[in-house]
Amino acid sequence: MQTKRRRLVPSHRVNIDRVFHALGDPTRRAMVEKLSQRPLSVSLLAKPLAISLAAVIQHLEILEKSGLVQTEKVGRVRTCSIKTAGLSIAEQWLDERRTTWEQRFDRLGDLLAEPDEN
Amino acid sequence: MQTKRRRLVPSHRVNIDRVFHALGDPTRRAMVEKLSQRPLSVSLLAKPLAISLAAVIQHLEILEKSGLVQTEKVGRVRTCSIKTAGLSIAEQWLDERRTTWEQRFDRLGDLLAEPDEN
Repeated sequence: MQTKRRRLVPSHRVNIDRVFHALGDPTRRAMVEKLSQRPLSVSLLAKPLAISLAAVIQHLEILEKSGLVQTEKVGRVRTCSIKTAGLSIAEQWLDERRTTWEQRFDRLGDLLAEPDEN
Repeated sequence: MQTKRRRLVPSHRVNIDRVFHALGDPTRRAMVEKLSQRPLSVSLLAKPLAISLAAVIQHLEILEKSGLVQTEKVGRVRTCSIKTAGLSIAEQWLDERRTTWEQRFDRLGDLLAEPDEN
């Protein structure tokens, strides 16, 4: 049953994996939500979150690797800010699906106009 | 350091967790890509994927629970089709972030117009 045709998973999608994975966690989304309002130091970002600073730093690493957040250390303060690259990749993927889906509905309209045997 | 203020993770976001989690897997995204083109039987959906039918069914369950895909059994054939609810939730979240982020840049423009000491 499993005919091994072409893989549907091109390697350039690795980043999309990371972006969606990163956004699948409510704490990380909360961090992205805060950072889309303004850049924040790690401690200010951590304050409203009911998790340890160590956990926040782990989440930050995941967000950085996925291209959703960037951090910069100036003096003793590490400042976190949003990076739109990650958001754009996710938006683009969703947008492509919607376009494909809507085009299909246009075609479906034509098909429904044809007589149906069932 | 960890002042326990309000949690930034409202309960109604559970579905968004599932959607983003579901989309974080390349096989599941490939399935959504195929199904956004047209509804497919489980076996046709599984064909180009280099994984077992059992694995496909597991992925399908995750996609169904997240509101990205729906399946319907007619006779002996289970047909899978895209469900836009999941895609819409993800799109809306990303759109809100982009709006917030763009509004911040408008404000940043004003701030940059002020004299800077550095």
